[in-house]
Amino acid sequence: MADANLQSKAVNTIRFLAADGVQKANSGHPGLPMSLAPIAFVLWTRHMNFNPSDPKWPNRDRFILSAGHGSMLLYAMLHLTGYDLPLEEIQNFRQLGSRTAGHPEYDEAPGTEMTTGPLGQGFATGVGMAIGLEHQAAMYNRDGFPLLDHYVYAIVSDGDLMEGVASEAASLAGHLKLGRLIYIYDDNRISIDGSTDITFTEDRSARFESYGWHVLEVPDGFDLDAIDAALTKAKQDPRPSIIIARTEIGYGLPTKQNTAAAHGEPPGETELAGAKEKLGWPTEPPFLIPDDVRVHFEEIRDTQVEVYEAWHELKREYSKSHPELAAQFDRTFSGDLPEALGATEFPADEKGMATRVSSGQVLNELASSLPELMGGSADLTGSNKTDIKGEMAFTAEDRSSRYLHFGVREHAMGAILNGLSLYGGLIPYGGTFLVFSDYLRPSIRLAALMKLRVIYVFTHDSIGLGEDGPTHQPIEHLAALRAIPDVTVIRPADANETAYAWLAALRNRAGPTALALTRQALPTYDREVFSSAEGLQQGAYTLGEFGDAPLEIILMASGSEVEILIEAAKMLHKDGIASRVVSFPSWELFELQPEAYQEEVLPRAVKARVAVEAGVSQGWEKWVGELGAIVGIDRFGVSAPYKDAYGHLGLTPDEVVSASKKVLDNVRS
Amino acid sequence: MADANLQSKAVNTIRFLAADGVQKANSGHPGLPMSLAPIAFVLWTRHMNFNPSDPKWPNRDRFILSAGHGSMLLYAMLHLTGYDLPLEEIQNFRQLGSRTAGHPEYDEAPGTEMTTGPLGQGFATGVGMAIGLEHQAAMYNRDGFPLLDHYVYAIVSDGDLMEGVASEAASLAGHLKLGRLIYIYDDNRISIDGSTDITFTEDRSARFESYGWHVLEVPDGFDLDAIDAALTKAKQDPRPSIIIARTEIGYGLPTKQNTAAAHGEPPGETELAGAKEKLGWPTEPPFLIPDDVRVHFEEIRDTQVEVYEAWHELKREYSKSHPELAAQFDRTFSGDLPEALGATEFPADEKGMATRVSSGQVLNELASSLPELMGGSADLTGSNKTDIKGEMAFTAEDRSSRYLHFGVREHAMGAILNGLSLYGGLIPYGGTFLVFSDYLRPSIRLAALMKLRVIYVFTHDSIGLGEDGPTHQPIEHLAALRAIPDVTVIRPADANETAYAWLAALRNRAGPTALALTRQALPTYDREVFSSAEGLQQGAYTLGEFGDAPLEIILMASGSEVEILIEAAKMLHKDGIASRVVSFPSWELFELQPEAYQEEVLPRAVKARVAVEAGVSQGWEKWVGELGAIVGIDRFGVSAPYKDAYGHLGLTPDEVVSASKKVLDNVRS
Repeated sequence: MADANLQSKAVNTIRFLAADGVQKANSGHPGLPMSLAPIAFVLWTRHMNFNPSDPKWPNRDRFILSAGHGSMLLYAMLHLTGYDLPLEEIQNFRQLGSRTAGHPEYDEAPGTEMTTGPLGQGFATGVGMAIGLEHQAAMYNRDGFPLLDHYVYAIVSDGDLMEGVASEAASLAGHLKLGRLIYIYDDNRISIDGSTDITFTEDRSARFESYGWHVLEVPDGFDLDAIDAALTKAKQDPRPSIIIARTEIGYGLPTKQNTAAAHGEPPGETELAGAKEKLGWPTEPPFLIPDDVRVHFEEIRDTQVEVYEAWHELKREYSKSHPELAAQFDRTFSGDLPEALGATEFPADEKGMATRVSSGQVLNELASSLPELMGGSADLTGSNKTDIKGEMAFTAEDRSSRYLHFGVREHAMGAILNGLSLYGGLIPYGGTFLVFSDYLRPSIRLAALMKLRVIYVFTHDSIGLGEDGPTHQPIEHLAALRAIPDVTVIRPADANETAYAWLAALRNRAGPTALALTRQALPTYDREVFSSAEGLQQGAYTLGEFGDAPLEIILMASGSEVEILIEAAKMLHKDGIASRVVSFPSWELFELQPEAYQEEVLPRAVKARVAVEAGVSQGWEKWVGELGAIVGIDRFGVSAPYKDAYGHLGLTPDEVVSASKKVLDNVRS
Repeated sequence: MADANLQSKAVNTIRFLAADGVQKANSGHPGLPMSLAPIAFVLWTRHMNFNPSDPKWPNRDRFILSAGHGSMLLYAMLHLTGYDLPLEEIQNFRQLGSRTAGHPEYDEAPGTEMTTGPLGQGFATGVGMAIGLEHQAAMYNRDGFPLLDHYVYAIVSDGDLMEGVASEAASLAGHLKLGRLIYIYDDNRISIDGSTDITFTEDRSARFESYGWHVLEVPDGFDLDAIDAALTKAKQDPRPSIIIARTEIGYGLPTKQNTAAAHGEPPGETELAGAKEKLGWPTEPPFLIPDDVRVHFEEIRDTQVEVYEAWHELKREYSKSHPELAAQFDRTFSGDLPEALGATEFPADEKGMATRVSSGQVLNELASSLPELMGGSADLTGSNKTDIKGEMAFTAEDRSSRYLHFGVREHAMGAILNGLSLYGGLIPYGGTFLVFSDYLRPSIRLAALMKLRVIYVFTHDSIGLGEDGPTHQPIEHLAALRAIPDVTVIRPADANETAYAWLAALRNRAGPTALALTRQALPTYDREVFSSAEGLQQGAYTLGEFGDAPLEIILMASGSEVEILIEAAKMLHKDGIASRVVSFPSWELFELQPEAYQEEVLPRAVKARVAVEAGVSQGWEKWVGELGAIVGIDRFGVSAPYKDAYGHLGLTPDEVVSASKKVLDNVRS
């Protein structure tokens, strides 16, 4: 260990790299890095294992800056410890094209384990990483081969602890005894509106104890050895640990230290110079890294490389003695799917089944060839059909099982799924009712921002759920999910489309996929009569043509409304009108298709178009054009048996026929 | 008090009215009402004040069934205590057109204080009601005139306690010492996925104590006197109380009692008959209300009416001694605004100001004439500009002040705003960044479902916030909010539009209004040159015409992008193209206008249209038509100074000009 003087110099280097960065950008949050520099220093130099040259090394310790506004702390650490983040990036903080965004963005600065900024998310996502760690360790570690043997660390703030998602995740983490989870709570007693006394006077220590956490207090968050000792104790405890470290925001700033003013604005030249003088740091040049500090970090890096190489030696031995496991480890951590992965086939059946039921069957078939599938439900297993037969629940005692009971904690589920995906080697899925996608929306957004392969099993996807009524009937949710960039929404129309929907979700590595599935039974279409369900992969496809050419009108819908279209098309046929029924399960997948395919399915020349969806019409204008019509539901639903609800809200073949004729009249005139 | 036998009969009447209702509907949740009937009976007959003939009586006790799936418990109580909910409604549970929806819907069955079902919302909304109560009591109660002197009760479930929104609200309730808040926790140890042991093993008692709550335990939730005693103790304690009542779900059901099977499906004829036999209840007829039980409830009602009439006597006296306060009480509880309420006027100013800044000024001007305005921010007061100058914070010690520090608890804020609105006499508002509207989305949906006048002050409404980057830059949020039925989204283009936006929000009694406001400064347009900002009230209006008739192209945008349109229109004018700039702050307000007005602003004959918005293009197709173009942002943002961000993402006058010319080419060809 370096002498106290050098350590203090290193801490100041971190502190002022961060503060100089904020000052140069004239934008950002200096308060946290100036205060947390000692904690970050101890954590990274005395506890964490990592390799700057291989930021995705599976056995690295994970570090999350849940208080993402303190991004400069992370960037300073990444730069000093040798990640590919040159000093120019630190100097270009928050500028267009830099890799040092205002809040840490996953994979932009190498070593950034996740995107943070929206409070509570880092806290809850870390719980997912710790679940991933425990599960993967149980899957892959073998006697003498502790392949995965590390910790998940985070720095969390007052704001994180106030957020509900953190409460949900903390309760579950305590329940699951995630002993490798170690959080350091930046107890600075300052929030943006002022002292935390104005809103946040709960007994945090007692609260975390009530969740089953190991609570440690560090009364002086600037005491390196005290921090070190707390981390050491935390690592030895079988419970998740939270270290409450008393700190002072904007440490060093002559007038702003310990005030909300230190939080979110540049310190100003005078304050910054004052802080440097106060802490014995040269006021010039900015971005100073003394040579001995740089050498110190290089030495730490060399030690890290030794640990890293020893692990690779272990891994080589492991591959010899456990070749199959090693191959599975490599394949799943690469994110590749096994080669032979087919769609479950369902025979035609007029009575059919709910798509949540076919989803359950498909999931079970996939699960046998995909050990990386891990997921569960927010206390709606039987409704979401998310269980894997024969698979036990992941618990404090059984880490190898892969079914997760999240409890009634949709938001934590969303964040935990992100954590599982980020951990590596896993494809996470989670179920709840579509209407409750609202509860986890902030985590869905982050999954999309990070382009994570996460699969949402959103069942009870419309007024078709019937009697539970408006609170449970999604109306705006398909539109609202489609609105999020990089989220793929798929709403299959029958069992065979559901099989392809799962394949599409598994193959989608550009962001999360939301499956919208019915509560009620839908016919399984006869694919000898209709086109193959493979068409789902293109997002929209011609399911069938009704009547003789020339084609007069295109009817399009997703999910359960396809059944209504087919009835309407038959009725139009009787009236001598030739229509095409387009099954349109996914706008996003269709938009990925070449223009020629899009033109084939929706020829520009056919202006008469009707879209049907048991949800708001918003956005369907794009597909039906100016002369088309949308039979949607631009109001909240009703509590009634589902057929009554459909009738009452005008989602019937009769309404579609009537809308179609009006459209045809308009187009002709 | 009735004898034990009669009380037991009354409890069974409640229990089996509920169970018979679920069985007849062949849909619903029998478990909770069968188990909680004793608690509801004690609460309604020994503690609550209410008047079935005047369900909106301001001094009634509020009762929330946060576990809304147990709706039949509420309906049974409402029927028995004499609300206008005939037995036929109980028998028509969950049917089309009945007033007994699957989950309680606000105002459908009279006496339903709020819509519940989405878990955690009732819990958190009750906290809002309790804040409303404390504040209104401080505002209106005077020596000898305890005008508002009641309690807020709720029945909450495991699911409620697991939800993050409840944790947020509980922490705040403890902090604010809301002693009139009394929750009964249905500790049945069963969740849908099975025993709560599988996910929910936290020490709930210690958790609530850590929040500063008064925790009571009733080991036998079927013991009427024990429940009664706990309620009495709760009322005397200055802290919010939670009574942990040990119950057994589906009490009485021979095989389903104490199992998840009792939760969400009809008991079945055999089980139901078995329960009746076991509890000494006639198996026939269903929906039995013995005469003595009916008489007992009538007697209770008579007592209630006496209390009610005494209050009105008190109110009459109050009106004499405090006429101004009484008038204000009556006006605000009626929801009417004072007659003279004008829009703040801002002089033209090229440099202008951010709409969040003008919003702050408007709010402050309105606050002086609207004592019913009460609100705050989720720890972003300085950013959201939500403070009322000179107004102190509502705290445990100061109940009369009306500024609320919610802490970093957006979701609880959303639910609390609903509670304030439901309480009566208040127009609540709350601020956070637009991107974090996701965190409170489930509460926004409920506000819309209940048609509550709640005002959201969502600032930092686009990539215009700049350096904080993608996590903080809303992209999909305008579209996602517009998608919710009955939510009015208003995004004003300058200070004068902001003034009218506030007026529109205050006048909107059909649902919540979301104001989307900029971080960055916008010009205050010269209304001598451009049309009056009054046009905001129509949702869209012609701001100005550029170039000589005939009009060739319409440019439309909301908020900060109007400035870009004006520049583009000037450039087009130079190129000899006549354009109209339409300021389009609110789709919902525009949709309310007569067709003639819509045609005036957006004449059908003008097919060349370009919409610009710093967000996803979704839905703008409706306004630009098939030949139009949308200059939007269909991807996540970037961390950069805001002008760089706008340039990088193509939101510039040049891009608008280029899109316009393409559109004109298409329209002409």
